[in-house]
Amino acid sequence: MNADSLTARLAADRARVDAYLAGLFEGRRMTAPRLEAAMRHGVLVGGKRLRPVLVYLSGRALGADDAVLDAPAAAVELIHAYSLVHDDLPAMDDDDLRRGQPTVHKAFDEATAILAGDALQCLAFEVLAGISHPRLPAQMRTLAEAAGRDGMVGGQALDLAAVGGHPDVETLARVHAHKTGALIGAAVRLGALAAVDETDPRVAALSHYAAAIGLAFQIHDDVLDVAGDTGTLGKASGADAARDKPTYPALLGLEGARRRAGELVDEAVAALAPLGDAAAPLAELARYMIERDH
Amino acid sequence: MNADSLTARLAADRARVDAYLAGLFEGRRMTAPRLEAAMRHGVLVGGKRLRPVLVYLSGRALGADDAVLDAPAAAVELIHAYSLVHDDLPAMDDDDLRRGQPTVHKAFDEATAILAGDALQCLAFEVLAGISHPRLPAQMRTLAEAAGRDGMVGGQALDLAAVGGHPDVETLARVHAHKTGALIGAAVRLGALAAVDETDPRVAALSHYAAAIGLAFQIHDDVLDVAGDTGTLGKASGADAARDKPTYPALLGLEGARRRAGELVDEAVAALAPLGDAAAPLAELARYMIERDH
Repeated sequence: MNADSLTARLAADRARVDAYLAGLFEGRRMTAPRLEAAMRHGVLVGGKRLRPVLVYLSGRALGADDAVLDAPAAAVELIHAYSLVHDDLPAMDDDDLRRGQPTVHKAFDEATAILAGDALQCLAFEVLAGISHPRLPAQMRTLAEAAGRDGMVGGQALDLAAVGGHPDVETLARVHAHKTGALIGAAVRLGALAAVDETDPRVAALSHYAAAIGLAFQIHDDVLDVAGDTGTLGKASGADAARDKPTYPALLGLEGARRRAGELVDEAVAALAPLGDAAAPLAELARYMIERDH
Repeated sequence: MNADSLTARLAADRARVDAYLAGLFEGRRMTAPRLEAAMRHGVLVGGKRLRPVLVYLSGRALGADDAVLDAPAAAVELIHAYSLVHDDLPAMDDDDLRRGQPTVHKAFDEATAILAGDALQCLAFEVLAGISHPRLPAQMRTLAEAAGRDGMVGGQALDLAAVGGHPDVETLARVHAHKTGALIGAAVRLGALAAVDETDPRVAALSHYAAAIGLAFQIHDDVLDVAGDTGTLGKASGADAARDKPTYPALLGLEGARRRAGELVDEAVAALAPLGDAAAPLAELARYMIERDH
């Protein structure tokens, strides 16, 4: 697959999950319309949809039909979206802008943003539980473990503790492995479990791939924060440094950080060997992720 | 069962779920110790454990073993606990005290309280997904639907909209049916699903029971807020009125509110008829709930 066809494929998968997510808010009698408007704002405004794309690519690589991948793809994105809504709150990162749009507490209010995040997390589990699948319990455990105290939220708590401190590269990697890596790992696993049992060795191969691209992705984000420009990013560039957040470029230098991201992508692609040719789109995606400029 | 034996039974069930909940935080390698301390504070400080007790009593009434009731009992309490942690935040009710103890954002900080609530919600789904049970998918859907936008969080959003307004009795009942009723309904249903399929007519009977006691419980809470004293309640009495929150005593008068709670308990007990003698503890609990003074 060349770069153009990957871009087209990513756009198609993004459109697919966007339609599924939008459908969760249509044709229904709403209990609390303002809450749902805030939830929609949190999940439907922009977004690269990397996690859903990973669910689709991983599932297809092991032979799953798209129809059984929509719910896990949406579920993992709903978890990601809720975490951003809460991350942006004044008591957390206090961001006014996300993807070039007002954050949920700016567009609505703080109480509604707290509740919208809470409801988006719950909706993730509801959407996943709504499918009939023999491996649903394993998928539920995968999502819950990745999202919670030993996964994403644990990483957010480690990140809070690290602001203003001077962590080394290992500590920073540990923060990111939880904060962003866990959910990226869940995405490939959710896709894989739609096709095969968790004992299949290709599930472990995909987890290795996910761990490597998760960290590469984070390092590249840090690089963009230093080297990118505000217009392309949709948020203020240099924001992390201004906030005294530890970053990879600060620890490794800009070129060192870029090199490390490249090594991790090589590791990710090598990990895909047990999947054979079926994994080509996943390999392309890994390479694409550290070339993107936003 | 007389009142003394009911009290002893409630104490035993409370101790059982408290031990199970405490066990979720012991003998494990923690990712983020401060986060977990805040989660423990949110879930382990006091609490009547009404929802877990309802899981145990409902499950036993339909023949389930206690061993399959612990996880759903803990899960529903974790959802309740997370909602209190977030409800107490400055942007929400801004409470300093809960059950006579500092609220989580007071004992820790606001960012940690947001994350602790998030992680408690996630832990609820993780605990429930951790059991092997043929009706686990139905239990997961029950919990997610009750906790989310059409259940508890939807009710919290309706409640936000109602503060400072002048809702009528029907509107207030709708708020409570979502805010507190949905999770009480989920508790009896989670217990029931541990024993029988959702098509069993006793599941519908229990849902009717739950809807009635849920509202009676809320009315009684409002009555206590007016008639109780601060020391017994563990929070400031008259707090709702001071905040211009709509309450049942304000709409029906104190005696009118007490009478309505009594009628709802009669309705709840009558709904239990299809369960026969096995439902006696549930009937006792309903009566007990509107006699308690805290």
